[in-house]
Amino acid sequence: MFETAELGRHISKKAFSEAEPVLQTQLLQIQRAIREANVPVIILVSGVEGAGKGEVVNLLNKWLDARGVHTHAFWDSSDEERERPRFWRYWRALPPRGAIGILFGSWYTEPIVEHAFARSDATQFEHALRRIAEFEQLLVDDGAILIKFWFHLSKDVQQERLKLDVGERIASPQLALYAKHYSAFREVSERAIRQTDCGHAPWHVIEATDPRYQHLAVGRILLETLQRHLDAHRAELVSGAEPMLLKESPPDAPRELLATLDPDAARTVLSTVDLSQTLEQEAYEAEIAALQLRLKRLTWQARARKVNTVLVFEGWDAAGKGGAIRRLVSGIDARLFRVISIAAPTDEEKAQHYLWRFWRHVPRAGFVTIYDRSWYGRVLVERVEGFAPRPDWERAYQEINDFEEQLHEHGVIVQKFWLQISPEEQLRRFKEREVTEWKQYKITDEDWRNRGRWQAYEEAVHDMVSRTSTRSAPWKLVSANDKRVSRVTILRTVCERLEAVLGQTGKPVESN
Amino acid sequence: MFETAELGRHISKKAFSEAEPVLQTQLLQIQRAIREANVPVIILVSGVEGAGKGEVVNLLNKWLDARGVHTHAFWDSSDEERERPRFWRYWRALPPRGAIGILFGSWYTEPIVEHAFARSDATQFEHALRRIAEFEQLLVDDGAILIKFWFHLSKDVQQERLKLDVGERIASPQLALYAKHYSAFREVSERAIRQTDCGHAPWHVIEATDPRYQHLAVGRILLETLQRHLDAHRAELVSGAEPMLLKESPPDAPRELLATLDPDAARTVLSTVDLSQTLEQEAYEAEIAALQLRLKRLTWQARARKVNTVLVFEGWDAAGKGGAIRRLVSGIDARLFRVISIAAPTDEEKAQHYLWRFWRHVPRAGFVTIYDRSWYGRVLVERVEGFAPRPDWERAYQEINDFEEQLHEHGVIVQKFWLQISPEEQLRRFKEREVTEWKQYKITDEDWRNRGRWQAYEEAVHDMVSRTSTRSAPWKLVSANDKRVSRVTILRTVCERLEAVLGQTGKPVESN
Repeated sequence: MFETAELGRHISKKAFSEAEPVLQTQLLQIQRAIREANVPVIILVSGVEGAGKGEVVNLLNKWLDARGVHTHAFWDSSDEERERPRFWRYWRALPPRGAIGILFGSWYTEPIVEHAFARSDATQFEHALRRIAEFEQLLVDDGAILIKFWFHLSKDVQQERLKLDVGERIASPQLALYAKHYSAFREVSERAIRQTDCGHAPWHVIEATDPRYQHLAVGRILLETLQRHLDAHRAELVSGAEPMLLKESPPDAPRELLATLDPDAARTVLSTVDLSQTLEQEAYEAEIAALQLRLKRLTWQARARKVNTVLVFEGWDAAGKGGAIRRLVSGIDARLFRVISIAAPTDEEKAQHYLWRFWRHVPRAGFVTIYDRSWYGRVLVERVEGFAPRPDWERAYQEINDFEEQLHEHGVIVQKFWLQISPEEQLRRFKEREVTEWKQYKITDEDWRNRGRWQAYEEAVHDMVSRTSTRSAPWKLVSANDKRVSRVTILRTVCERLEAVLGQTGKPVESN
Repeated sequence: MFETAELGRHISKKAFSEAEPVLQTQLLQIQRAIREANVPVIILVSGVEGAGKGEVVNLLNKWLDARGVHTHAFWDSSDEERERPRFWRYWRALPPRGAIGILFGSWYTEPIVEHAFARSDATQFEHALRRIAEFEQLLVDDGAILIKFWFHLSKDVQQERLKLDVGERIASPQLALYAKHYSAFREVSERAIRQTDCGHAPWHVIEATDPRYQHLAVGRILLETLQRHLDAHRAELVSGAEPMLLKESPPDAPRELLATLDPDAARTVLSTVDLSQTLEQEAYEAEIAALQLRLKRLTWQARARKVNTVLVFEGWDAAGKGGAIRRLVSGIDARLFRVISIAAPTDEEKAQHYLWRFWRHVPRAGFVTIYDRSWYGRVLVERVEGFAPRPDWERAYQEINDFEEQLHEHGVIVQKFWLQISPEEQLRRFKEREVTEWKQYKITDEDWRNRGRWQAYEEAVHDMVSRTSTRSAPWKLVSANDKRVSRVTILRTVCERLEAVLGQTGKPVESN
């Protein structure tokens, strides 16, 4: 999930100094409108240590009219607070209607810290998250506008900051301790964000490497969200009784809101794939043979332990999915795998929920099931071509996560691949297919049409990875301009994943 | 919660035979409309053993056109099913669009049975319920109409049936076992129902003592729910894009739908209070003195253990709340209690969520807090007088349950009292107040106005008890026509509750 907040997005000094005064004026205007509309606004400022949360809070206080802003930092809980139910302290901190409350740290901090330091178990953590979801629902039902920011830094950047930032180290003596447990925090935070990321209270995960990018993203999201709510509020006042459904926030709001300011602010996750990688034929042949042998052994082990594996393949047209799958299954005994090619749904399938056709094929224990295209069609082709209305594909991210989480809880290994090629390479392959007789069936009008929507697809892939790449069901972005690189990468990833699960613990799945 | 399904509601033979043919004709019509609208309908048939679930399923198959009905019973899971994630078997059983699926037993059965027999712990149970809520959300988001029936029998009636019903005993050899664990099942079921009872998939808890009442209630609810969904569906087709908010189902649907057929089908929970009870002055004085002494000892014990107690008083005007509270606090050291009278909210309170004013007064550990009127104003006076719009008070039941559950989890004892008097007794007291000079301040125009809405208030009280009487925060309905009976009942209930918590386990709260 955090992959999409490690892209090195930034904003130039010039673009920032041009945008800031405009933004501030707009924020002051909207703050007045909020006061008139008499709705409370709650802004949660959270994220990893060292991500400049304090600066964001100071900045918001600078941009906004301080008279309507209530800033509240949650330090360690007091005696007073500990003698009451946990949410008492959060109720105390809520802003009244018409005001903006900035909460530095929030109801998320304690559950995340407790669980990351293993002082609470997975089910206690889940219970705490349910309480949070209920609380946020209650606030939103009452008309509050809830805006949740999560600021992210990669491990390396966090380490850098630790060395430099003496001031923050004094403010938070635990910073070094937190940094040491970076990956535990990352995993626990991912879970917290995923489980509480819903339509009425979405999370905004923002890369905090470049403060200019971070600050403009915060400002623009704030502005856009408040504007959207005020519009809906006014429409309700005009139309009378019936409450309207609120328009959704863009899935990657910072990207869409900042793209015009600086192209570097709009990088997608696909920009991280190094397409220049190549592999010589000889090295390739040796490596692929070794990997196939290794995979054969591993899949028999998985069979003996009754561990299922689900491999999902998505990618651009002509990215080489078919060839990669053939090399992969050469390393698996034919009795142990099944390849499922997802074409148009049957009549019977169309009469059911779109996930029904995937549930019906969930294999019994001990097998490898390979999906050539998958349930991700919902958030790729169906989104881009408009086959599914926006609320349907928006909802699908969560539905897919729930589905894969159920597979994971049942002990199924889930690994997803996106095969990435450049538009130039795709064009070369299309043309090659047109002139090579036995390859002509492979190229259709549809392929050319999809190609015309490269950017829309790239955005859909970016959102898909952002929303559905989880620790238990990760996406691997495969550099596929060179087919040899692609095939080796895929085989190696599958082997490593199986080894990690089968090898160390002796148990089919890591405890969840 | 189940108190409201133990009222002896029934339908006369005559009323039933008049209503049934009409109902069947309407059901067949609506089934055709469902087929045309191409939406799937999922009916869950669940409840305690012996409650005639099989007969309901047979009846629905008789009433409806069998060609569009898919009945599915969940027996013990097969090998096939156990080797896949738990929900695989439920996905298999879903009806296609346009059809009606009747699920005999459902995704609730296994989690409830596992937890009632202590084979899963509280957090595993909560996790299972979260999965269920996600699944139901997914179905409803996809356009399915989900109707959930829970059939209830009191313990005595279940025992009766066990003796008589040889046929069912053969069908379910575990019936005797389940009956033996009646109270464990009751508690676990209550929790399951409460946590999954939401707007898009509400539960209908139906008393199953009288089959005629049970069957007509099922038929009418089915009809009313389908009609409501079809109307919304059609409105959407007409108005174009924007999906509309669906009108809610009545809180006690059977009551509202069957009231015209037979007054005995419309009994409220207040009908169970025996108002003829009396107590002589001498016996009263002795008893009250003993109880006050007992309470003094208990509240000091609670103080030592840092256990908080919250007592809530609601009741008709002139039911004697004030007097009862005075007798109660005579039994508590003045340093240990606080009485909070809930009047109109302050400006500061009005600028917040309605629960904020109650959260702010949550006491520190070791005290007794007595609320003379409370957060229940939301679902009583605000509902009846229209001060809160329907969605607001409808939502409040769940919000209040969450609030009280947080108190309970923090170790607070919560006990709620409703003081019940007859309209005749109220009139007598009003008149007495008008002629007694020092009591005149106690009677206002508002009291007379409220009296004029006796039936609306009675319905609101009924729904309140139905939705918010839980094991950890129960309602006690107090017979208050005789003030002496009322005061003794209240003191005794408080003593017994404190003893139960402080006495046996040595721990402040039962494990949850």
